[in-house]
Amino acid sequence: MTNEELLTNAALKSWNQVLGQFDKGLAALTDEQLQRHVAPGKNRVFYLLGHLTAVHDRLLPMLFIGERLHPELDEAFITNPDKTLSDPIAAADLRKAWSQINSQLTAALQRFTPQDWLRKHSAVSDEDFAQDPTRNRLAVVLSRTNHLSFHTGQIVLTK
Amino acid sequence: MTNEELLTNAALKSWNQVLGQFDKGLAALTDEQLQRHVAPGKNRVFYLLGHLTAVHDRLLPMLFIGERLHPELDEAFITNPDKTLSDPIAAADLRKAWSQINSQLTAALQRFTPQDWLRKHSAVSDEDFAQDPTRNRLAVVLSRTNHLSFHTGQIVLTK
Repeated sequence: MTNEELLTNAALKSWNQVLGQFDKGLAALTDEQLQRHVAPGKNRVFYLLGHLTAVHDRLLPMLFIGERLHPELDEAFITNPDKTLSDPIAAADLRKAWSQINSQLTAALQRFTPQDWLRKHSAVSDEDFAQDPTRNRLAVVLSRTNHLSFHTGQIVLTK
Repeated sequence: MTNEELLTNAALKSWNQVLGQFDKGLAALTDEQLQRHVAPGKNRVFYLLGHLTAVHDRLLPMLFIGERLHPELDEAFITNPDKTLSDPIAAADLRKAWSQINSQLTAALQRFTPQDWLRKHSAVSDEDFAQDPTRNRLAVVLSRTNHLSFHTGQIVLTK
């Protein structure tokens, strides 16, 4: 591996580790347990799973990997806080969406060359990116990995 | 910046972002509020702050940055779960230790060259590192950044 590959490999490994930790926690919860709140008066696990699914679905176009698979989740899980709208999806389907989106993301990230990791994402303009090349795809993936770890820490509290 | 520098810069930025988010949450809590549990029957914020302080203190020798500053915290905050031992440090001193350790870490990471990020950490042997060069300092810092984000997600629940 080149140095550049070793550096991007660490980011991919970190993504896979956090995703693996989350999925292990998710697999340990029944559909009924997804209705638990992470703490009294705080989000349900179901809402957090929906939120993470919608946020990761947005990564597909943001990283130029593909079209969104589940844009219909944004309204209930990003635009609005928990318990504002009724859940727009059944637990089994939400689990499936989560797994499909992450499989597609991970497969694409595995194919990224170091140059790909350093390309701009779709939420930054050519002009802004020329001024600030740190607004690249790697920065987005590291940020989403932290975001996933943040909510994983909450979800494990329901055990 | 070279490509290698752009890649390691993203990791440093991610570390700084998560640390900034944690510190903002910590600053919003009084010493009394540090005694709150993140959820019923779960860790106190005080314990998590002690735990993170001890874990980050261990990074100093692990990344060959310097000697540990607070090895006396391990017993209460790593070896044992919350409320096993009485707290070995006052809140104000714990806040100070947290801030000192992270200042030293961040200053050192800012000076790391891409080659430094790819060097071995002290918990891996020369032989093992020769076989698996992904066990480098970058991997450790990404892992600790995720760990910090994981517990930040818990601590914000006490707001």
